[in-house]
Amino acid sequence: MSKPGEAGLKALADYLASDMLACNQVIVDRMQSPVALIPQLAAHLVAAGGKRLRPLLTLAAARMCGYNNQDGRMRHVEIAACVEFIHTATLLHDDVVDDSQLRRGLASANAIFGNKASVLVGDFLFARSFQILTADASLGVMAILSAASATLAEGEVMQMTTQNDLSTSVEQYLQVIYGKTAALFAAACESGAVIGEATPEQREALRMYGANLGMAFQLVDDALDYAADQATLGKEVGDDFREGKVTLPVLAAYDAGDEEDRIFWRRVIEECDQHPGDLEAALDRIAKTNAIGITLKCAEDYAAKARENLSMFPDDTLKNLLLETASYSASRER
Amino acid sequence: MSKPGEAGLKALADYLASDMLACNQVIVDRMQSPVALIPQLAAHLVAAGGKRLRPLLTLAAARMCGYNNQDGRMRHVEIAACVEFIHTATLLHDDVVDDSQLRRGLASANAIFGNKASVLVGDFLFARSFQILTADASLGVMAILSAASATLAEGEVMQMTTQNDLSTSVEQYLQVIYGKTAALFAAACESGAVIGEATPEQREALRMYGANLGMAFQLVDDALDYAADQATLGKEVGDDFREGKVTLPVLAAYDAGDEEDRIFWRRVIEECDQHPGDLEAALDRIAKTNAIGITLKCAEDYAAKARENLSMFPDDTLKNLLLETASYSASRER
Repeated sequence: MSKPGEAGLKALADYLASDMLACNQVIVDRMQSPVALIPQLAAHLVAAGGKRLRPLLTLAAARMCGYNNQDGRMRHVEIAACVEFIHTATLLHDDVVDDSQLRRGLASANAIFGNKASVLVGDFLFARSFQILTADASLGVMAILSAASATLAEGEVMQMTTQNDLSTSVEQYLQVIYGKTAALFAAACESGAVIGEATPEQREALRMYGANLGMAFQLVDDALDYAADQATLGKEVGDDFREGKVTLPVLAAYDAGDEEDRIFWRRVIEECDQHPGDLEAALDRIAKTNAIGITLKCAEDYAAKARENLSMFPDDTLKNLLLETASYSASRER
Repeated sequence: MSKPGEAGLKALADYLASDMLACNQVIVDRMQSPVALIPQLAAHLVAAGGKRLRPLLTLAAARMCGYNNQDGRMRHVEIAACVEFIHTATLLHDDVVDDSQLRRGLASANAIFGNKASVLVGDFLFARSFQILTADASLGVMAILSAASATLAEGEVMQMTTQNDLSTSVEQYLQVIYGKTAALFAAACESGAVIGEATPEQREALRMYGANLGMAFQLVDDALDYAADQATLGKEVGDDFREGKVTLPVLAAYDAGDEEDRIFWRRVIEECDQHPGDLEAALDRIAKTNAIGITLKCAEDYAAKARENLSMFPDDTLKNLLLETASYSASRER
């Protein structure tokens, strides 16, 4: 039995199955290099099989706007592969930066191949995505994806500078997750719209749909770090806690907590002075203040906005699948 | 008194002073970000003041091919800044990957700002360079620079996989330094040629000039790691030795050494089993086998080829300065 939210995403992937198959083929073909370690390391991540949500969005947006390979090419598939390469590059660099040992339930690339190889293969995939974009020759798509890549790096740096800082405002937190996650979701959708020769209104609607979807997605991710077991999440539970990341569950618990709660949060997050039992104590304080509920409500609000962003499109199967994907993004069962 | 080789490079920078000034301005302007840490970290590297050899090559190649801002723009300056951004991004990642503490005689960015920030700001500069290229709108230049970026990453990965391996052939070593250094020199020159609307022959000649110059440059760099004192080099002497990098000085000393030499090299490079006094012992063995002389001779051969590559261009000041730059690249006094 599939999880409640997952049905929407799976149905979207099924509906676009032949495009996704072609996209996977481009990913495998274009990560090749005479330097054997590059495809080996890249294949490890590809084999770990992420949900491919971002390329799926590019393919869906292109089809929504009527892209039908009328140019005799598979531009939407190429661009979708670029989006996945950019995402994979950031995953590789994130895992190095955060010293993560698990990714999607498997040992992370840096844990197996080392930090050096992960940094360099990330650079390779990023460069390769711009080679593909150059060959595609759409300056519009290049502008979108190069800007999103810069915003992504800015978001990650901003996250780093807010780490261990409980005076971070909710607004700053939302800026961080826009940069680190939502900007690429937005760019994935907008790129597909450009390929599909969307009207300016359609393009803007799909860009906003992606942005709101990405916000919902990251909010739930941040909630799950305090609410899921390792088997479901496929990553180490309490990662954010151990790193002193200031996410909405922590901000909400800190904000709604009493003085004793605040003393606790300052010690574990600001001073990073953590002892056995502290993660459990953090989970208790988060439960007491309904911080997960607050975070998931925020995610649901963004998902609702994402659904509204699609109102201009005619009701058809693809639109309904994207509406379901928005519900999926805000579901804690993903 | 300037060093013998340096006069050529300094004269080239002087000749192109107003272009270089404009290029520095673009570099400073385009590394700005609302995320304050990004320009702070980038400024540290810019302030450390490299020779800016790569952007200088782009500017010189564009001018050699007659670029005279007839388009009312400063395309050569923008592209030169991109080349420097790509180079700076790789320096940031290299220093993280190699855990280097010094860069150009100052504390490295990772030593001051940490590995996380260095990886992410490298990503930002790389993304930013593609934003600038997209705005410039030359697909030709984008193809050159995205391919060079991928080759750069391949070169670095290949260097990693040959590390500690004395069975690396000289040919493999030359492939590594082509990837990690010469490819971007070649791309810097070729990009300038494209901006200057060069003929295919001029473009190829300048590409080859850059490639040969880059080979000479890296060979001398590898020689200096065993032959210079720290003050001259601006980096830690013996870095390559400590990391077990297999460079030409080591390959030549291993090849020309007796059985006792080979036992030594296998212990310190392959097993990385190094003790106090081993660097001095390595320098003695390198001196005994004339391994530095062999490496510098190889560099001089590439520099001579670089000079020949310019034969089709009319004799003028700029050509003479590029000829001198080739001499500079092969000089151990740089």
